[in-house]
Amino acid sequence: MRAITLERAGDPEALAARGVNYPCTMAQPNVSHSVTIRVELNNTPGSLGRLTTAIGEAGGNILGIDLIEVQPDQIVRDITVLAADPDHAQQIRERAEAVPGVHVRSVLDRTMRLHLGGKIEVRGKTPLKDRDDLSMAYTPGVARVSMEIAERPASVHTYTIKANSVAVVSDGTAVLGLGNVGPYAALPVMEGKAQLFKEFGGIDAFPICLNVSKPEEVIAAVEAMEPVFGGINLEDIAAPACFEIEEELKSRLDIPVFHDDQHGTAVVVLAALRNAAKVVERKLTDMTVVIAGAGAAGVACAKILSNAGVGRILVGDRRGLIFDGREEFEGAKRWLAENTNPDRRMGDVKGALKGADVFLGVSGPGIVAPTDIATMNRDPIIFALANPTPEVMPDEVQDIAAVIATGRSDFPNQINNVLCFPGIFRGALDARAMAITEGMKLAAADAISAAVAESDLSPSYIIPSVFNRGVAQAVAEAVAREAQREGIVRHTI
Amino acid sequence: MRAITLERAGDPEALAARGVNYPCTMAQPNVSHSVTIRVELNNTPGSLGRLTTAIGEAGGNILGIDLIEVQPDQIVRDITVLAADPDHAQQIRERAEAVPGVHVRSVLDRTMRLHLGGKIEVRGKTPLKDRDDLSMAYTPGVARVSMEIAERPASVHTYTIKANSVAVVSDGTAVLGLGNVGPYAALPVMEGKAQLFKEFGGIDAFPICLNVSKPEEVIAAVEAMEPVFGGINLEDIAAPACFEIEEELKSRLDIPVFHDDQHGTAVVVLAALRNAAKVVERKLTDMTVVIAGAGAAGVACAKILSNAGVGRILVGDRRGLIFDGREEFEGAKRWLAENTNPDRRMGDVKGALKGADVFLGVSGPGIVAPTDIATMNRDPIIFALANPTPEVMPDEVQDIAAVIATGRSDFPNQINNVLCFPGIFRGALDARAMAITEGMKLAAADAISAAVAESDLSPSYIIPSVFNRGVAQAVAEAVAREAQREGIVRHTI
Repeated sequence: MRAITLERAGDPEALAARGVNYPCTMAQPNVSHSVTIRVELNNTPGSLGRLTTAIGEAGGNILGIDLIEVQPDQIVRDITVLAADPDHAQQIRERAEAVPGVHVRSVLDRTMRLHLGGKIEVRGKTPLKDRDDLSMAYTPGVARVSMEIAERPASVHTYTIKANSVAVVSDGTAVLGLGNVGPYAALPVMEGKAQLFKEFGGIDAFPICLNVSKPEEVIAAVEAMEPVFGGINLEDIAAPACFEIEEELKSRLDIPVFHDDQHGTAVVVLAALRNAAKVVERKLTDMTVVIAGAGAAGVACAKILSNAGVGRILVGDRRGLIFDGREEFEGAKRWLAENTNPDRRMGDVKGALKGADVFLGVSGPGIVAPTDIATMNRDPIIFALANPTPEVMPDEVQDIAAVIATGRSDFPNQINNVLCFPGIFRGALDARAMAITEGMKLAAADAISAAVAESDLSPSYIIPSVFNRGVAQAVAEAVAREAQREGIVRHTI
Repeated sequence: MRAITLERAGDPEALAARGVNYPCTMAQPNVSHSVTIRVELNNTPGSLGRLTTAIGEAGGNILGIDLIEVQPDQIVRDITVLAADPDHAQQIRERAEAVPGVHVRSVLDRTMRLHLGGKIEVRGKTPLKDRDDLSMAYTPGVARVSMEIAERPASVHTYTIKANSVAVVSDGTAVLGLGNVGPYAALPVMEGKAQLFKEFGGIDAFPICLNVSKPEEVIAAVEAMEPVFGGINLEDIAAPACFEIEEELKSRLDIPVFHDDQHGTAVVVLAALRNAAKVVERKLTDMTVVIAGAGAAGVACAKILSNAGVGRILVGDRRGLIFDGREEFEGAKRWLAENTNPDRRMGDVKGALKGADVFLGVSGPGIVAPTDIATMNRDPIIFALANPTPEVMPDEVQDIAAVIATGRSDFPNQINNVLCFPGIFRGALDARAMAITEGMKLAAADAISAAVAESDLSPSYIIPSVFNRGVAQAVAEAVAREAQREGIVRHTI
């Protein structure tokens, strides 16, 4: 495996000091590192064959070949090639250039090209073609809508984008697996999230990356811009600041506030675990779950599993298992100390696995070994969710584990938050819910579980595909129903 | 004229105490008060004729008639009718219901319907149909884009929506002519503005309505969210807070900050005045301009006209003409005192008009009379921009004035900011400008003036139509060229 960025400009050391992790790249050629190579080929038989052979020998997988231009003596083609990383793409280019009769005009990085100018756009829902259009959408017509809202404030949820909008808020302190890359570098991720909100939930989401340094500043900025949004999705904010920010915003705002890294993950984990339990024919109440990682996701998973009745939960952080009395805990970890590990077991996650039913990793790559998994109860369930490199690789434990799930798309059972957040916000907005409650999260998890028919359940199919478009709708309906049942909905005109 | 809202719920007195002005409505039937009346008509000859006659007698103008459904004994139709205001629409409904053989099923307010769920949407520029799409737009591909930005911060202007985005920021303190309606009621206006940005400038603008009470809070919120935006358009923020907010944000941010109520108005006024001067064959340097109103627009107009070389400028506020020594001025008014009215003339705007060449009203309805206009120099130029009711009605002074412009679409020469803001931001974004300078504003004004060919200039055609799509592009090119010339552009990869 190569680190993708070592040869680049910038100051990797300064970034590393800020806690930025250089991304591991996948060793296999993949679409996210694909390039389009535009080549001029001598118009003689065999040119293309020699070129594709060279690319293949360089380890590149050819995704497609397009004809761009034919001239009497040469042909211009675009060859789209999957590479393992940018160094690999460079090697492929060099091998192509070395082929006699081949001239490389340009090499285009498809992922970077896709991001040129951003991935999302803001547009009117109706055209503004003439004065009549203008006078209804803008002055003078819009003044009546403004007055309606001034007089009946709840109508802002009816006559504006607030009816359907979610802010995707990040301070860039815990972006993907990269760490504290800051609000600018977080922007393409939040744009991608906004795109997913629209694609899967029909929601108008907008990225809000905040250039601030204190939790109070995140809270103040979000509170200030609340008029525009029907919901707040907190994203990639480091623990423990994320807990304070979420709690404070929930108490100040009357719209749903949801930290996806916590609750989205927790909902999908619960959904998958319910189905995994069916596969191994065991009850949640009889299970012991060991969680590696006490960050945002670990805390939220522990809470939702506790609410769902899981028998025994043990959570480990860098210093080992959390138990009441280990140290003076505050905030979320205090909750863990008081509500998990009732026997006050000490030691580390590896030791705790002995006899446990479920390993849930929300930490970092390779922190447990197959030999640790081998000490678990029979038919162990392994959720190794660190991305891109799991806590333990599926192929290393496939003979031991009964069910394996990861965060990756190239193994079965991908635990992906996109199964939750579009539907849960869709349901909350549809119901005019003023919060996303524990009950709504549990309802979302049930709907996701139920998207896999009992008769289809198997060790490699415990969670629906992210491309199952029915999931978001099923989640939305379940969540809206639960919001209505709990009566936390806004009554608007 | 009727006030549209007196019969409504809410607390008009509380709103009035906060400085909210109930909107004047236009006495003429208009599209912004149009309704669609769904009627069941007996399927007998003459029914429709009786109905349309009744609507006409009630003063409604029929815009269109659609056939919805035909049954053996009845026909369902949608009749779209222009009304003067909601009371008038109600009267039309009652008259229609009184026609024998007519049953009104529903009456739909077209402007309110257009606003249901908001006027804008956020969507991906490319579809997310399969895993490959996801892995380039989101994880794992997006991590490379994030690392690129973390290492080369300027690349955020290349690979994210920041390349093309503008925040339309308001605190709702001076919305249209309505006053301090607050951030919620401001939202439909800012959404409309965002729609105009896209329609005329191809810019991805997003409304940011801030629920804050102090200028520092507006500044802090905008500074916090700056990572997402390539430009900041301040909108409908009351004076004098707007001056402080704009100045402070300009000094803190390296992206363009532009208060449209000030500078957009000023640019279009200058453009129109240049052409009006040609029509009356006079030079700006020889002119005396009297400005009524020392709010955001008045101050900015005085500044740009001063920069453009206008000979003499007098500005009046509620207390009369501003002159050095009238009182202890601060901020913008201090600038006016020091830079206008060099002869320290006292008195009011009406008195100042005697012998003046131009009256520029950016204040309120009906504040000058035709008799005041009659005291001006020969061929006076009247820009009466208060909306919807001008400082003096065009038809009252058409025999006196050489050129008349208003803010309204139902008279010739509409001074409309949409001629400026899409193009000026388009040009700034295209050039990667770090600010919008005085030079760029003057360049924008010149481009707008030049959009009316000299040979076409006439008293009723000094400014291009808002639907002249070439204007924004011409403004953008002129502004980008000037930004390059001044060298205030960002160098990106």
